[in-house]
Amino acid sequence: AQLALERDYELNRDIATRMRVLLDISRDAIAFVALNTGRITDLNGSAAQILGGSVEDLKGAAFADELTGGAGTDVLDQLARAGRSDGAARTELTARRTRTPLMVGVTLFRAAGERMLVCRMDRADHAAAGTQALN
Amino acid sequence: AQLALERDYELNRDIATRMRVLLDISRDAIAFVALNTGRITDLNGSAAQILGGSVEDLKGAAFADELTGGAGTDVLDQLARAGRSDGAARTELTARRTRTPLMVGVTLFRAAGERMLVCRMDRADHAAAGTQALN
Repeated sequence: AQLALERDYELNRDIATRMRVLLDISRDAIAFVALNTGRITDLNGSAAQILGGSVEDLKGAAFADELTGGAGTDVLDQLARAGRSDGAARTELTARRTRTPLMVGVTLFRAAGERMLVCRMDRADHAAAGTQALN
Repeated sequence: AQLALERDYELNRDIATRMRVLLDISRDAIAFVALNTGRITDLNGSAAQILGGSVEDLKGAAFADELTGGAGTDVLDQLARAGRSDGAARTELTARRTRTPLMVGVTLFRAAGERMLVCRMDRADHAAAGTQALN
């Protein structure tokens, strides 16, 4: 069992490295958010740029502080609701620092017993062009 | 030490889940390739689409069989060379099945002692538009 665990450890350290490289190579602006704390657990350079800060600065920050929704809207609720919905889970928010309107794609998932969100942020004014480039 | 390993195991299983979710939410077409075997170890739906197959179909396939370079060019060599270069590591290749010209961004990295490539594939004719949407 010890050996199996050590093998898993090696295997998973490998996955952690891949994860880092994948985040770095992605042009999609990606942020992971822990729902229980509301904090950004990881994000890439594209996400930091769209939110108007640095990766170091924003890692651990409260995601809801970086975004504004409609009046009286709880941003995390809005995201979690979008993540739970079927089909195209997208919702509109604005990056607070840069005042950029965003279309945010959300997936809600569970890892190690915790509810997490992964958010892909597109500038709303470029969202249509981005979709077109895919087809 | 046993407990520490078990804790690492939990932590890393969490990373594996995040990795899967991240690949799925990315619109960037991403493939991981093991350099020693030349095989695709993981890819997402966007990558499968650009290569003209399914994720199941292409996972484990020889990456070089899916791409063509210039005459007499070894595709893996070309990718590894791009991955080793400084600055913008991009190289032009064509998806064999769909005959789509691609601009491939490459990062070479080492995980668990193995050399790996992560490749981000853009349709070459849309590369300019994609870059523009980022700025």
